[in-house]
This record gives sequence, C-alpha cells and structure tokens, in this order.
Amino acid sequence: MNPEADAARPRHLLDLAAWSPTQVAALFDTSDVMAQVMTRTIKKVPALQGFTVGTLFFENSTRTRLSFERAARAQSADVISFAAGASSLSKGESLKDTLKTIDAMQADLYVVRHPAAGAPHQLTAWTDAAIVNAGDGRRAHPTQALLDAYTFKTRFPGFTSFEGIKLAIVGDVAHSRVARSNAELWTKLGAQVTLCGPRTLLPDELGERPGVALTHRLTEAVEGAHAVMALRLQHERMAGPLLPSLAEYRARYQVTRDALALAHPDALVLHPGPMNRDVEIEGALADGPRSVVEAQVANGVPVRMAVLYTLLVGGKGRDR
Amino acid sequence: MNPEADAARPRHLLDLAAWSPTQVAALFDTSDVMAQVMTRTIKKVPALQGFTVGTLFFENSTRTRLSFERAARAQSADVISFAAGASSLSKGESLKDTLKTIDAMQADLYVVRHPAAGAPHQLTAWTDAAIVNAGDGRRAHPTQALLDAYTFKTRFPGFTSFEGIKLAIVGDVAHSRVARSNAELWTKLGAQVTLCGPRTLLPDELGERPGVALTHRLTEAVEGAHAVMALRLQHERMAGPLLPSLAEYRARYQVTRDALALAHPDALVLHPGPMNRDVEIEGALADGPRSVVEAQVANGVPVRMAVLYTLLVGGKGRDR
Amino acid sequence: MNPEADAARPRHLLDLAAWSPTQVAALFDTSDVMAQVMTRTIKKVPALQGFTVGTLFFENSTRTRLSFERAARAQSADVISFAAGASSLSKGESLKDTLKTIDAMQADLYVVRHPAAGAPHQLTAWTDAAIVNAGDGRRAHPTQALLDAYTFKTRFPGFTSFEGIKLAIVGDVAHSRVARSNAELWTKLGAQVTLCGPRTLLPDELGERPGVALTHRLTEAVEGAHAVMALRLQHERMAGPLLPSLAEYRARYQVTRDALALAHPDALVLHPGPMNRDVEIEGALADGPRSVVEAQVANGVPVRMAVLYTLLVGGKGRDR
Repeated sequence: MNPEADAARPRHLLDLAAWSPTQVAALFDTSDVMAQVMTRTIKKVPALQGFTVGTLFFENSTRTRLSFERAARAQSADVISFAAGASSLSKGESLKDTLKTIDAMQADLYVVRHPAAGAPHQLTAWTDAAIVNAGDGRRAHPTQALLDAYTFKTRFPGFTSFEGIKLAIVGDVAHSRVARSNAELWTKLGAQVTLCGPRTLLPDELGERPGVALTHRLTEAVEGAHAVMALRLQHERMAGPLLPSLAEYRARYQVTRDALALAHPDALVLHPGPMNRDVEIEGALADGPRSVVEAQVANGVPVRMAVLYTLLVGGKGRDR
Repeated sequence: MNPEADAARPRHLLDLAAWSPTQVAALFDTSDVMAQVMTRTIKKVPALQGFTVGTLFFENSTRTRLSFERAARAQSADVISFAAGASSLSKGESLKDTLKTIDAMQADLYVVRHPAAGAPHQLTAWTDAAIVNAGDGRRAHPTQALLDAYTFKTRFPGFTSFEGIKLAIVGDVAHSRVARSNAELWTKLGAQVTLCGPRTLLPDELGERPGVALTHRLTEAVEGAHAVMALRLQHERMAGPLLPSLAEYRARYQVTRDALALAHPDALVLHPGPMNRDVEIEGALADGPRSVVEAQVANGVPVRMAVLYTLLVGGKGRDR
Repeated sequence: MNPEADAARPRHLLDLAAWSPTQVAALFDTSDVMAQVMTRTIKKVPALQGFTVGTLFFENSTRTRLSFERAARAQSADVISFAAGASSLSKGESLKDTLKTIDAMQADLYVVRHPAAGAPHQLTAWTDAAIVNAGDGRRAHPTQALLDAYTFKTRFPGFTSFEGIKLAIVGDVAHSRVARSNAELWTKLGAQVTLCGPRTLLPDELGERPGVALTHRLTEAVEGAHAVMALRLQHERMAGPLLPSLAEYRARYQVTRDALALAHPDALVLHPGPMNRDVEIEGALADGPRSVVEAQVANGVPVRMAVLYTLLVGGKGRDR
C-alpha cells in the first residue's frame, strides 16, 4: 500500500477535485487486482463482507446502478436499493428527510445519482456514510471518467503516464457530466483535452480549465488525438431545439472512420453509452478494432470495486 | 430467555392484540441486543442464515420495505421482494392465488402491506409461513407502534414502566393505522392515550378502548403529555374535503413549540413520517432537541430485527 | 452422474429441441434432490456459491422471475435483476448493445424473457454466459414444460415412462408458448398430446409435430386423458376479437368436473397460471383433489434449481 496515497485519501468520491494523481494511480492499481478477480471462475472475494452499500437513484439508470451493485456483491457486501421513482418518499418530504430516512438503514456507503448538481455533496452533511457520486446533473460523473481513463491506460502495456496524451471529446458537451469529469481527470493526469461540438452544445466556460481547448471543427479536435470519445445527444435535457438538423449534425460531428484517419495511428474510440449508431458515431467504427466501448462497460465493475474498497476499507468509513 | 414470554408467543404479528405486555417487553429486550449489533463496524450477524423473508407490498412503501429488508439481511436472511404494482399478478387472479404463487418460493416469513384491512390475517389461512403486518388499510401497523414505544422507552435510562405515561396523538387520526396501533400498544402497556383532531378526522369509536380519550382541543391533548405524536394529513385517503381549510387546520392542530410548553417538561415529540414541516408539525420543533423523529426511523431496523428473530427462531416457523 | 446425459449436455436451455430424453430424465433426478432440499428447515445449499445469475426480463413477469431468483439464491448464487420497463436502456440502444452492457456485469447465466420469438437464441451469439429461455413470444417456455411434466411424474410413485400417457391442452393454444413447449417435451418423452380450442385459437401447423393431434371438441380431447391442462385466454395478445363470446367459450371449452368424467380415472388437472376461475377452468375443479396447480408452482423452484445447477456446474459455464 502506498502511504502517500493513503494519508490524505478523501472520504468521498464527489468529483475528482480532491483526488491527487497519486491517489488515482493507487485506485488504478487496486482496479488491476479487481479486474484479475473478475477473470476467475468464482468472481467473488470477501473483501467487503458485512458492509452495506446503498444505491440512491433519483434519476433512472440501469447500467450504472447494476455496475455498482455487481461491484458491491462481488466483494460480498450487502446491497440496499432505493429508486425515487418507485418510492412513496415523494409525499412532500425534503431531500434531507428522505436521506435521513434511508440512512436509518445504516449503510456504510451510498451511491447517489441526482438530477441536481451538488446534491451528492450536500448529502455528506447529513450522514456519516461515504458518498459516491454516480452522476449529478451536468456536473460530474467521476466513476465514468475513472473507468474511461483506466480503459485507455490498460490498452497499452507498459503505459506509464498520461503526459502528452491528447483526448478529443465530441458531441453534446453542454449536457454531459461525462465530458466534464473526463476533462477534469485527464488534465489532472497530464493529458490535453479538446472538447468539440456545435456552438449551442459547447459552453465557453468549459475552456477555462488549464489543459482544455474548445473547437467547433471535428478535424481540429481529432487531429493527432490518442483517444476520441463520442457523446450521445441528450435530447431529453435540451429545453428547445439546439441543433439545426440531425442530418447536419451527422455531417459535421459524427465520429467516423474517415475522421479517425486524422488521429494518432494507435488512437482508441470511446463512448460512454448508450450509443446511437450512425448518429454521433459511425456504426462500423463502434464495432471496429479501435473501439473500446465494450471494454469500457466491462471495466466499470473492477473500477467501481476499487472505489468501494478504497473508501470503505482504505478510508475511515462510518463510525470508524 | 423468558419462558413465560416464550410459552405462548404468537406465530404472527398481525396486530398487538395477541401480544402480552411480557411478550412485548421480551421483544424490546431483543431489540436492545439488535440495536447494539447496529453500532458495530460489521453490522451483521448470522442469526437467520438460511431463512428467507418475503416482502409482499400491495401498496407502495419505500421506508417500511427497506427497513424490513435491512433487518432481514443484517441477520443474514435471504430476501425476496414482491411489489404488486410491478407485477403481472393482476391478470385476473385472486389474492389467494397470488399468495399461493408467491408462497411457492417457500419463504419462512412474509412481511405484508395491503390496502384492505384484515388482508394479512387472511393470508395466515393459506400459508405455513409466519406473517408480519406492515400496514393493512387503516387498521394496524404494529411494527411502527413497537418502534415508537421503544424509541420513547430508550430515551429514559432506567425506564421501567409505561404506567402513568400520557401519549397525545394529534392530526388525521381517522385514516391512521399508526394511531390505532399506538393506541392499542401504549394502553396495553399501561399508558393513557389521548387522540386529538378535527371532528371529521376523529371517529368516535376510537374512544371506546379503555385508556383512550378523545378531544378536539390541542391544548387539552398536549397538557401534561410525556409524548406528543403528530400525524400527516393523508389527503390521498380522503374521499372528499374533510377539512375547512389548511390554514385553519394549521392554526388549530399544528404541533408547535408553543403547544409543547403545556406538556411535561421532558416531553418527546414523535412523527411516523413522512413529515410535512409547518403543516402538521412546526419545522423548528421537528428539528429541535425534543424531537426523536430520527431515532424513530433508526430504531425501525433493530425493532424489526427483533420481530423477525422472535417469530422465526423463537417461534415454530414453517414446517417446524 | 449419468455420463451419457453429461456427454452432450447443451450449454443453454432455449427450448427442448437439443435435450434428449435421457438428459431430461437426468434433470428430473436432479430436481428430486433439489425438492428434498426445499423440505428442510434450512432451504439453502452452497452449490452455486460465487456464481451470478442475471434475470433479463423484457416482458413483465413476477411469478417466473421470483421462481428463478429463489432457485438461484437457494443455491447461494448472487442474483442481478434487469427489468426493461424500469430501464434507461431504451435510449435508442439495440438489443445487442443492451446485452453487451448487461453482460459487463459478468453473470454466469442469464434468464431471459422477451416478446420476440428467438431473442434468447440470438443472445447466445453475444455472450459467453449460459442462456435460459424464460419465455420468448409464443415460441417456447421450456422450464414451464419441464415443471409441468415433472409435476405429473412425481404424482405417481414408481412412475417410469411417459409412453402411452395422453395429455390434453385446452384453450388459447394459438398464443401459448406453454402449449408449444409442453407439446414438444411430452411427445419427446413418448406421450400423446391433443391440443384443443376454437378454430381461431388453434393453428393447423401445431398438428404437424408427430404425436400431436388437434381437435375443436373438448370431449374428444379429454377422453381417456391422463393429464388435462387448461390455458388462460391471452386477450392482451389478441389483435382483434377471436372469440364469438365469452359465454360461448365457457360453454364449449371450460375444463369442468363434468368434462373430466371422460378422462382417465386418475387424471390430473394442470394450469400454468395465472388462473381465471370459472372462465377457462371451473373453480371447483381447480380447487379439487385432482388439481395439481399448487404443486406446479411449488415445483417451479426445484426444477429451476436443477436447470441452473445443470448448466452452471454440470456444463462448461463462462470461461471454463
């Protein structure tokens, strides 16, 4: 165990601001161990036996919730699931009272998804349990960024550093917490990040982070990139029409095999899912040899196992 | 173990009619042990390993269902959940056939919530498993009453008896199974219970139980009370308008700090949740030092652990 | 263990085409062992400890899903549940991408229900996990047929063969995957099957399987039968009115005590549920001594335990 990584390890994973590059590296090392567990016949270890992980989803999500639940159960933790949709907790109760009610179950860690930016952070004031942000509004989705970077790193044996690496993120950047968390993580690790999309979907303020550049031209974003991530158009979050037409969007921003010809010869293609083939990404590219889309989803489990393990066993946890 | 409590212990918890004061006291002793378990780092004991608890909820409920599931899992029982809303069991099937179908899963105990009064009792005829009533219509919600009384008791170190204790229950008594079960339990244990609310929300027949008084005046209910419980207005169960106006209701029946000045100096404030601050209870009171609302929710888990343990291991259980 | 049964055991249970009579007999032997487990005080064995069973239900089902989950947990497997209704996986994703996402959880076996015939078969191309069909369109529902035949067999101590046995299936045959799978299984085991219903609900092509006869006359179907299975009218799958009137349907096709007088003296009555008493089956018959409806549901758990065990431990499983 790395004492430097351990010393100031955050109690929560709300975003990546509080996590140092050394701590992220330690998390990736733990992810390697967990990934090895998932290749065994018996994909289960007793690491979190006796712990309870609660999932609090105030927005629908199947893939993320299942991934966390699997990560908890693969370490023998108990799981208690709360989905706001199916709940009677809407009888006029405040978020604080809802959390207090849920927290009576005495889970050791809550995985929280909420439509309001900052909601997971707010919850830390009302419980002793650890909080993992599984997506809050457009703000952050840190475990997605961790698994994206981890997926990239593990594709290159002997990979030592993100210094000099160039990541392009293309599409509906405005509504994407995935874009924001990836920009935060990859620049922290030393990479350059270019965000690309039409004017209406690319807010200027995202270019203020050191190491992040903005462009409206796909060719400029992709040129020389080691990793190209395509983002889904989040129509459900768009208040009005933000696109001239879907046909024009495809023509200008679809990540295609042609576009990828401008990238680094070893460039990888990522997509956080769900994927709309032949809209934001060419289907043949998504299914081709450069695509690591399936590896991203698969890495979700070991990376989230590492997050749960680090916060629960490495950290202080509830009442400890 | 108390042999008297054990001798005639009921097989089910349908309401509190069949439970003697001695048996309730034994249940509270077991709750103390379970509460101690929930303060440990590893909040899990193998007491119910190999048993299966089924939750059958024909009405929506998150807090109660989660509390029972946690209580089961904290004792290493398996849990199988059935929610009528999400079910295909509505294809013209009778309640009996539904239960027979569920019962094929061979759970050892079912936790049942149903909109019809008496439904949990009816189920006992169709299964060998133990039945715990988690709320049937307006009739009974015995585990809520148990955790309310337990919460009161544990706030006073050295507490020996409910004799001479006065409980006031204020609000929408008519629609409240919580009020009915608390009136039943506290009077059984020796306390005096005053039910208070507007004429339309306070049925006369509730005053027929020995030890229970009715009043339409908040001051009269609260005067000298050791415990004051506020109830939510269950608009969803009101067929028509039963209240003159919400403003008038607040003015006359909101449980406030001012009202509590008339109570016993050590009086505690309870609320079964969900709470509408500044409607049936003053927000500042709910969050103040006399409020035990959070303790109520927290005690839900150990009290329900004790109920499950008592019925499954203390009792005869299925096929035993 | 029977080496012949083991040698070519299928990796999946998509329908019964690939299962030989010897393999089915071995499955029934394993079901006997599992049924014995379910009579114990502790209804749990460690047989599948460390394995994960995923349930993927693209159609609502409570009884079948619960039965599989119980079968998995009774063998100490972990369960991960995916219900398409509650899912965000409808954001324009293909079935393949959905499966790939779910499959990142690395379950060892998926139990799949889908409205499209052939969907479970298709999934086998996209995952290394074993697939169990829990119902695909009108095509097949093999575990229901297995538990029906197992229920019949276990009612006759010393039962050795289905040769010479006559099964009548009455009702909405057209929309019934249960009818199709039972016709496939019972004829494979040597029985004669007669399918019976009104012209609009009895497709001619079902009579093409050797050993299967069709009739529109209830008396003809039931005469001399050892087993009579009534089927629910699946109004929800009928595009338009396929019945003259419900009264006429009842008069001509309801399975009654009178009708059963024509059957073999020891004949049993089956129904796959949910049952509409006094529509497709006389209530008094369903509740009478010849009815094995409750035994069918109860046998669902041990038969599905045997299916999971056979595919996971007997077979090769994922990565093995």
